[in-house]
Amino acid sequence: MPHTLQDYIAHIHPIPQDLAAQAQQHLDNLTKPQGSLGLLEELAKRLYCIQGGSPKIRATTAHMFTVAGDHGIVVEGVASFPQEVTRQMVLNFLNGGAAINVLCRNNNIAFSVVDAGCVGGPFPAHEKLIDMRLGEGTKNFAAEAAMSREACIEALCNGIKLAESASKEGYSTVGIGEMGISNTTSATALFCAIYGLKPEHITGPGAGASASLIAHKAQVIERALALHAPALQQGDPIDTLALLGGFEIASMAGIALGAAKNGLILMVDGFISTAAFAAAQNICSHVQDYAILSHFSAEPGYISILESMKKHGCHALPLLQLQMRLGEGTGAALAIPLVRSAAAIFNEMATFSSAQVSGGN
Amino acid sequence: MPHTLQDYIAHIHPIPQDLAAQAQQHLDNLTKPQGSLGLLEELAKRLYCIQGGSPKIRATTAHMFTVAGDHGIVVEGVASFPQEVTRQMVLNFLNGGAAINVLCRNNNIAFSVVDAGCVGGPFPAHEKLIDMRLGEGTKNFAAEAAMSREACIEALCNGIKLAESASKEGYSTVGIGEMGISNTTSATALFCAIYGLKPEHITGPGAGASASLIAHKAQVIERALALHAPALQQGDPIDTLALLGGFEIASMAGIALGAAKNGLILMVDGFISTAAFAAAQNICSHVQDYAILSHFSAEPGYISILESMKKHGCHALPLLQLQMRLGEGTGAALAIPLVRSAAAIFNEMATFSSAQVSGGN
Repeated sequence: MPHTLQDYIAHIHPIPQDLAAQAQQHLDNLTKPQGSLGLLEELAKRLYCIQGGSPKIRATTAHMFTVAGDHGIVVEGVASFPQEVTRQMVLNFLNGGAAINVLCRNNNIAFSVVDAGCVGGPFPAHEKLIDMRLGEGTKNFAAEAAMSREACIEALCNGIKLAESASKEGYSTVGIGEMGISNTTSATALFCAIYGLKPEHITGPGAGASASLIAHKAQVIERALALHAPALQQGDPIDTLALLGGFEIASMAGIALGAAKNGLILMVDGFISTAAFAAAQNICSHVQDYAILSHFSAEPGYISILESMKKHGCHALPLLQLQMRLGEGTGAALAIPLVRSAAAIFNEMATFSSAQVSGGN
Repeated sequence: MPHTLQDYIAHIHPIPQDLAAQAQQHLDNLTKPQGSLGLLEELAKRLYCIQGGSPKIRATTAHMFTVAGDHGIVVEGVASFPQEVTRQMVLNFLNGGAAINVLCRNNNIAFSVVDAGCVGGPFPAHEKLIDMRLGEGTKNFAAEAAMSREACIEALCNGIKLAESASKEGYSTVGIGEMGISNTTSATALFCAIYGLKPEHITGPGAGASASLIAHKAQVIERALALHAPALQQGDPIDTLALLGGFEIASMAGIALGAAKNGLILMVDGFISTAAFAAAQNICSHVQDYAILSHFSAEPGYISILESMKKHGCHALPLLQLQMRLGEGTGAALAIPLVRSAAAIFNEMATFSSAQVSGGN
């Protein structure tokens, strides 16, 4: 690990948990029965801690990064859509026609597409496009490492740069979402390697695989994990990400690290973004303090993954349960209004004494 | 029932369910794996049907009605806050310091407080206040009818007027929320009467009752149901509402009827608003077609109530599960951005052919 990345990670600090009691005291003085806003109050407490106890929580401005990359594992026949869809969808993102565009526009969220390495060469320049290409997709990780350790570090540093820029531009919140045909296969492999889960237990349909395709995906992942077992057993988190990850996944993990370093609120989308978050947390466990899991992915393995995260000390609960499985950042975009509302409740409500409202028994 | 209300209700029509297939076909052509937006797609289909198949769904403009009223049942010692809190909270609503104010402001929702009958006389005029007082609170329904049948009809007509106005002013969506000390007791009694549930099974803490207070509440409700059993057995939905309801609950039921008549999207808040919705549905079953249950109330009885609603043909699933139990319309306000997002997805996404994206296998 070059001195700079290691050094950067060493400067990611846990949030001051003792501020949570302060935030709770404030919430309990507001004109509502104590705790009656449920998870919205939990969320407000977390935001208060993330921002170091500043009396007004900042959560209005948000930037979504939808990161795209292709995957060599596609040659194993694990996808239900052809590989060219990654590129076609990036063009759709640039033209504003995808679900994530609609949700960002309608929820006042700034939006960029990051090309982390799609097949077919660079895209024409576009105001919404950030070129951080690491190649023409990853290698087939069932046959060799998905990427080199150096490429993985570069992807992490790219993500860090994106979060640093968002912070400098004054955003309080960053969202991570993705596009990449076959990337549920890569994400599933990462979950298995990081949490010791079995592919047959957590492999799901992704964009729409049949039962037989799901079984095939699980076998491909099993084979890949066996191939890389000696290296994975070393437990180096960057090597794990390089062996099994994707350019977009490693870049998103970098955004997560950069968000944590800068005290940004990190909105994690669904299955694949959660894998990027898990990889980042594997590199630096404090990242979890800054992350909000935005929704409960419809991927059937997601519940086991949450349980594993919990065992590893991450108690984040997904905010929304809408049976979604699209990716792109769509769940994160839908959860951002809830984060803003939690902050506004904390910032703007009257207290029992200021409003002259009697307390309960 | 006077000719006018009966006549009005006769003009509430079910939504044309056959349009759902049309809406699904459109959703399946959009650039995303089929069904991958989960409940957001179900929501979009429902909105399309509510609006009669208009090619663009209108869901941007929303008006929240927070209806306040006092309850004679408070003399039975069922509340954990003193009765004057109803009035104090109305003043808080008018001053903009309550949770519902914060959420409406931050989510671009118009807001009015309706005084349906708070103790202490009329409030001073205020631009956000609508005076639809039916008295100084209801009677103690454990000793006599909460209100007369005539007062109940007046409350229903008041609610209808509010929905009619909202429709004329061009709102696509109305939300119902409430404030009224002791109104979980009234709401619980209504659920028991309408769905044949037992008070001991669904009585919960409301704003924060202890276990012994919950047991006492359940006994009071049991006694009231026994007192009114002969009248309740007649099964007249307006009489049921008059015997056990509240002025704010009956007014909200009227808003629900008016929303359905005008093809508005009806956002139902938590436990008490759901009782008002249940009362409206009991009067006219088509109301359910227009209603979105916005969140899963933290009241422990809520799950049994949802199951009962399902048995009665209402398959609405609450959108949010945030362990909230505040009322006022707060859950409805938080769910409105999801409704807008569902409409925007339907209206604005590119199709596979327009975006030149390949389909799946």
